[in-house]
Amino acid sequence: MHFEHTEKVKNLEKKLTEFMEKHVYPNESIYKKQLEAQESRWSEIPPILSELTAKAKEEGLWNLFLPDSGYGAGLTNLEYAPLCEIMGRSTIGPEIFNCNAPDTGNMEVLVRYGSEEHKERWLKPLLAGEIRSCFSMTEPEVASSDATNIECRIERKGNEYVINGRKWWSSGAGDPRCKIAIVMGKTDPEAAKHEQQSMILVPLDTPGVKIERMLPVFGYDHAPHGHAEITFENVRVPATNILWGEGKGFAIAQGRLGPGRIHHCMRLIGAAERALEELCKRIQKRVAFGKTLARQGVIMEWVADSRIEIEQARLLTLKAAYMMDTVGNKEAKAEIAMIKVVAPNMALNVLDRAIQGFGAAGISDDFPFAAHWANARTLRLADGPDEVHRSQVAKIELRKYQQKQEVKI
Amino acid sequence: MHFEHTEKVKNLEKKLTEFMEKHVYPNESIYKKQLEAQESRWSEIPPILSELTAKAKEEGLWNLFLPDSGYGAGLTNLEYAPLCEIMGRSTIGPEIFNCNAPDTGNMEVLVRYGSEEHKERWLKPLLAGEIRSCFSMTEPEVASSDATNIECRIERKGNEYVINGRKWWSSGAGDPRCKIAIVMGKTDPEAAKHEQQSMILVPLDTPGVKIERMLPVFGYDHAPHGHAEITFENVRVPATNILWGEGKGFAIAQGRLGPGRIHHCMRLIGAAERALEELCKRIQKRVAFGKTLARQGVIMEWVADSRIEIEQARLLTLKAAYMMDTVGNKEAKAEIAMIKVVAPNMALNVLDRAIQGFGAAGISDDFPFAAHWANARTLRLADGPDEVHRSQVAKIELRKYQQKQEVKI
Amino acid sequence: MHFEHTEKVKNLEKKLTEFMEKHVYPNESIYKKQLEAQESRWSEIPPILSELTAKAKEEGLWNLFLPDSGYGAGLTNLEYAPLCEIMGRSTIGPEIFNCNAPDTGNMEVLVRYGSEEHKERWLKPLLAGEIRSCFSMTEPEVASSDATNIECRIERKGNEYVINGRKWWSSGAGDPRCKIAIVMGKTDPEAAKHEQQSMILVPLDTPGVKIERMLPVFGYDHAPHGHAEITFENVRVPATNILWGEGKGFAIAQGRLGPGRIHHCMRLIGAAERALEELCKRIQKRVAFGKTLARQGVIMEWVADSRIEIEQARLLTLKAAYMMDTVGNKEAKAEIAMIKVVAPNMALNVLDRAIQGFGAAGISDDFPFAAHWANARTLRLADGPDEVHRSQVAKIELRKYQQKQEVKI
Amino acid sequence: MHFEHTEKVKNLEKKLTEFMEKHVYPNESIYKKQLEAQESRWSEIPPILSELTAKAKEEGLWNLFLPDSGYGAGLTNLEYAPLCEIMGRSTIGPEIFNCNAPDTGNMEVLVRYGSEEHKERWLKPLLAGEIRSCFSMTEPEVASSDATNIECRIERKGNEYVINGRKWWSSGAGDPRCKIAIVMGKTDPEAAKHEQQSMILVPLDTPGVKIERMLPVFGYDHAPHGHAEITFENVRVPATNILWGEGKGFAIAQGRLGPGRIHHCMRLIGAAERALEELCKRIQKRVAFGKTLARQGVIMEWVADSRIEIEQARLLTLKAAYMMDTVGNKEAKAEIAMIKVVAPNMALNVLDRAIQGFGAAGISDDFPFAAHWANARTLRLADGPDEVHRSQVAKIELRKYQQKQEVKI
Repeated sequence: MHFEHTEKVKNLEKKLTEFMEKHVYPNESIYKKQLEAQESRWSEIPPILSELTAKAKEEGLWNLFLPDSGYGAGLTNLEYAPLCEIMGRSTIGPEIFNCNAPDTGNMEVLVRYGSEEHKERWLKPLLAGEIRSCFSMTEPEVASSDATNIECRIERKGNEYVINGRKWWSSGAGDPRCKIAIVMGKTDPEAAKHEQQSMILVPLDTPGVKIERMLPVFGYDHAPHGHAEITFENVRVPATNILWGEGKGFAIAQGRLGPGRIHHCMRLIGAAERALEELCKRIQKRVAFGKTLARQGVIMEWVADSRIEIEQARLLTLKAAYMMDTVGNKEAKAEIAMIKVVAPNMALNVLDRAIQGFGAAGISDDFPFAAHWANARTLRLADGPDEVHRSQVAKIELRKYQQKQEVKI
Repeated sequence: MHFEHTEKVKNLEKKLTEFMEKHVYPNESIYKKQLEAQESRWSEIPPILSELTAKAKEEGLWNLFLPDSGYGAGLTNLEYAPLCEIMGRSTIGPEIFNCNAPDTGNMEVLVRYGSEEHKERWLKPLLAGEIRSCFSMTEPEVASSDATNIECRIERKGNEYVINGRKWWSSGAGDPRCKIAIVMGKTDPEAAKHEQQSMILVPLDTPGVKIERMLPVFGYDHAPHGHAEITFENVRVPATNILWGEGKGFAIAQGRLGPGRIHHCMRLIGAAERALEELCKRIQKRVAFGKTLARQGVIMEWVADSRIEIEQARLLTLKAAYMMDTVGNKEAKAEIAMIKVVAPNMALNVLDRAIQGFGAAGISDDFPFAAHWANARTLRLADGPDEVHRSQVAKIELRKYQQKQEVKI
Repeated sequence: MHFEHTEKVKNLEKKLTEFMEKHVYPNESIYKKQLEAQESRWSEIPPILSELTAKAKEEGLWNLFLPDSGYGAGLTNLEYAPLCEIMGRSTIGPEIFNCNAPDTGNMEVLVRYGSEEHKERWLKPLLAGEIRSCFSMTEPEVASSDATNIECRIERKGNEYVINGRKWWSSGAGDPRCKIAIVMGKTDPEAAKHEQQSMILVPLDTPGVKIERMLPVFGYDHAPHGHAEITFENVRVPATNILWGEGKGFAIAQGRLGPGRIHHCMRLIGAAERALEELCKRIQKRVAFGKTLARQGVIMEWVADSRIEIEQARLLTLKAAYMMDTVGNKEAKAEIAMIKVVAPNMALNVLDRAIQGFGAAGISDDFPFAAHWANARTLRLADGPDEVHRSQVAKIELRKYQQKQEVKI
Repeated sequence: MHFEHTEKVKNLEKKLTEFMEKHVYPNESIYKKQLEAQESRWSEIPPILSELTAKAKEEGLWNLFLPDSGYGAGLTNLEYAPLCEIMGRSTIGPEIFNCNAPDTGNMEVLVRYGSEEHKERWLKPLLAGEIRSCFSMTEPEVASSDATNIECRIERKGNEYVINGRKWWSSGAGDPRCKIAIVMGKTDPEAAKHEQQSMILVPLDTPGVKIERMLPVFGYDHAPHGHAEITFENVRVPATNILWGEGKGFAIAQGRLGPGRIHHCMRLIGAAERALEELCKRIQKRVAFGKTLARQGVIMEWVADSRIEIEQARLLTLKAAYMMDTVGNKEAKAEIAMIKVVAPNMALNVLDRAIQGFGAAGISDDFPFAAHWANARTLRLADGPDEVHRSQVAKIELRKYQQKQEVKI
């Protein structure tokens, strides 16, 4: 047991932190202003983003998420985790380093399950940050917490697949650079429960693909990326667009989700750390009832509880990453489910305290807390609601005692 | 002790509920569409609002909040409370009945402390719903939880007062019909701590009044009303615009806040009731893992806890209203502080459960939960943060034992 | 809607409070010392108790719980509730006024369902405080939260019933004055689910009744009353000992539990009030880190939250009592279930804060908090665990929407 | 970063677990019975304890807590932590391995600060398990959360020190084998705040030492060890009994508390693990409302939350141990304060859920949950209340930003 990162990781942490402080934080408000100044919030990407992206690439802070050393940085989950945390401190951070969801997950899927052609056509420009992608899984008509409910149909017709269905929360689909969707649907509704589903690549300009509307999260539109509701009406793509093979949808989803959850959790930890840092600064300057807020006992308790919750969430997430690296996704299932519950709820607590400590400023966009809060709240639902993950943890726990039921008390 | 409303109140409840079901709920999405279709979200008021307002006035569901029977409905706080709850079920509800904040509080101030001229010029059109008003108290530069921090200056110069300061969270100031602000500032920084402040009427078209920007609340712009940051630079108004007299700002604020807190709390209870109702319906239809959500134990617990929390918050709020009616604001101070903590937090809990139960739909604007949630969150800060109210409750509690400290255990 | 008790009730409150202050609180430690000085904690009743009991009877503060004016005080549930709260402030309080569980519930059962003979033989001496009784329902071998699990058999053999079973948590059975048990068991395991059970009177000196052991609650033995595990082995009683009739066990249990729950909840509120009072006194005297505990923000928050939680729990309990009086137990089902969740949890919170505020003294028996805490914890299980009550509340809530499922949003 | 223990530790874990399963758990009830069968609960030590102690010594599972390899096992904090957890699963566990508080802390103090004579006379028999010791710090008259409040006087008179004071919660003082107390008191009330206190060795048979009474913890007497209130009246001991030197009391307390807190926390984690294990077994066998408790969603959530909370608390405690080993107590201050808040509260949660899941059995002594709960509750006060530790964490956090207050957002 050992609680320190390697020198290699520490160096990357340092480099990344410097980049954030020098280039990212000071440009957050510029990003926002450029976005508001555009003709439409969806028409283009604020130019500051490309500048920063270029800088990050130049400094080698690029595709750090990708464990495959052929395509990416070749870091383990445990090595990437603390870097992901740093990027997550800013809502515009991850994209600058080409480490934002859902592109990271989509790129991983392409690395692992994509054909050479898929890699050439979609993975390469994604890795270069030239195009963006979305992931179309959740559907409005059914409880998607149970993925077997999915109703979208992917039917083989000759050399093509025909897709019909309605998806929503396809994040990133509003981005003008978004060119490709990975769509989950049923190829064989008669197959075994977890073999009915497949994943398929659908270029967004294919006839029959229609973005119906962009969905807000609380009041945020998350432009220019956004969350789309998309209808697929007799959408035809070549049969080769299927990923891995028919019936592999569930298996791919499982593989995709493991690292994705680590990433989400670490970004949330970053958001929480930043909130705690800003809270600590603010309350040492702000005065009410004759003393600084930092000297009000209740607020000190917020600071302490925040620090305590962050530390615990981080350790558990790092352990989950460690297990993924050493014993694999399957053995790390309980830990991954745990952090998916812990991190969003921890972040919501810490962010809520920061909001309360900042007063009305906290709910506005003068500070990043409200925006981070909305993201964290989303992550109590996205990639499975808390309840499904808790249920997963409980099942694994109960299973330990199914064979040996004699109470030894 | 008796736990039923009078027949008069029950009849009004019934009438109002019918109005909501017939006219308000079905038009919520139309309101939203009209707003989005406007040239600017701030340029005009969606026409459906005037239609509904006219209808409400016609049916006598108008100015129910005003206890003064000369100007309004003449209901007691206890009688109005359950009606306010019903209006609060819809974010567009209160305004339809001319019962929305901050106009209600401003009208009450004018009834109580306004001169005949103030009433003629501002109260009448407000009561008629022809103009709107805002309340400028909170400031960006200081912790406004401690109102003695306020820095805005109101200086007497001859027959005029000159106002200089920066205010924010002046809600409603974005509304094109908004004509008048009640501004709180210091007339005498040397006076006793709670007699330095005064309130003054400032028409928004007075030179030197500048709306700097509209502030978002968790991504919501709350157009067309909005929350403004306003600068007052050498703004001159006639000396007669002062309310009640110099140094009365605090006293007016106290009087204004009592009923306002009842209103906020009852509206939050309405929002929570609606969320619980919709949650109960949804979970009886939605299926995951082979059974309806309503049959998942965890979700049933949400329903139970929500019902339990709502009932308790409502009883406490009604008791506070009863005390205001019978023994007055001052004696009801502890109860008013208590509900100001209880109701927003209860509403946040219930709304959060509804959001979780609705999945991703819950955080979008397909349902009113996320919007209500943001409002409820705001009310943990507006009119004093939880911490100030808890501190108030504790002080009153401790005072009971200051004279008789001998422990009798 | 009205939030004050009648003059009659206020007078009784005053009288009772004076009695508590004059006779009960100052004798708590004497009771404890007398108990410890006895040869065995179970052999006799501390003499101070009989003295106080006599005094209470003399002052007419006797059997206040009994709504039947022929046998008791004839108060409604709403009238008795605040008196019950006052008695509950002391662990020795209720018995002094002959208002302690389980005797109160047993007496009510005898008044409602007992034959004239039962009343003569058991009710009268119980009302006089000459004997005590116990209630034998819960069983060790099954989850008694589901009362249909009960396995105790009551079989008709000629003019007798023969009882076989094992019961535990028969509270009060350790008391040397305890003479009679009301036992719940199955007379007909083939009958409809809720008609299999009956209740029967079993004198504790009947052959075959054996007290196996006394169970502790946390570390408390609750001597001299205690909680017994009792075996019934071929216990024969006259057939006339059955209450109401065969198959009526469930119905009696329902009727018995309603008022009993109000009592439990009000006593818990009393315990919480006392804890808050003592906490407020203590923290104004005790100094740490240069200021009284009362000036530490965190502790003020405990005071405020305690006051807030107590007020809400009390209002809800009073409303439940009001509903029982006006629309009956059945209509008040949801409210009764709610308070059974709310009051113990509230009391645990408030008592826990008092304990924390008193430091190590709080967990000892120098103050009544730890003992009250253990009682409150028990009441999250006794008369049904929280989970069963929450489930009850949820079912009633969901039922409201089963007929009208069209979402009106 | 690495999340596995060394082979050496794993072997010890295995050996210890086997010992617990073979010798400790099956003898818990025997211990209890022997204690109850004694003439007095305080007169002797149940014989089973000596048997088990001998066995543990024989197997080399002895004094594992002591990092000093001359006197003890020479394990680091990080190595000992998981072993301490295993011992903590049983309330009688730690003593069997001579690893129970307060003897462990006292032995460490003697190793570090004792003279050769102290070691010979007190340390050796303690290490051999022949005598026991207590630690007298807390006082009834002052808030001991602030250790500068301590009033006990230790005055130099010639070659002796004279001790006058009243202490309570001297745990273990009831044990007939308890021979020595480490007493904290003021040698110089005029010295700097943290140099007024000293620690001194006081044999319990010194004239003037009087055990006034044994204090209960939630009804538990914790015989035969107990918690004593002790008066010291003109107690004279040789001047050489002082530990380290005058004015070193605080410094010793700091050094003593670090490892002690790790131990407490790990034992609590063990208690929680056992509760979770037993809960998981119970709910898979117990049926209510037609299905096992394990299939009730709410109870599954308890299992998941318990697992999640335990994992996080353990990781944080191990990290604190790691830091103590690598950077020292002082640098690990924040982490030690954090775990002192986290572990007791986590254990209380997990134990409370187990209690609730076991129903009435859970609050009795048929299972170890209630007893463990009372211990855990004590640890929210002992060695400093939560509030003091939270305040410590907050201060360290705030200090990070005192130099660089410019907000970089």
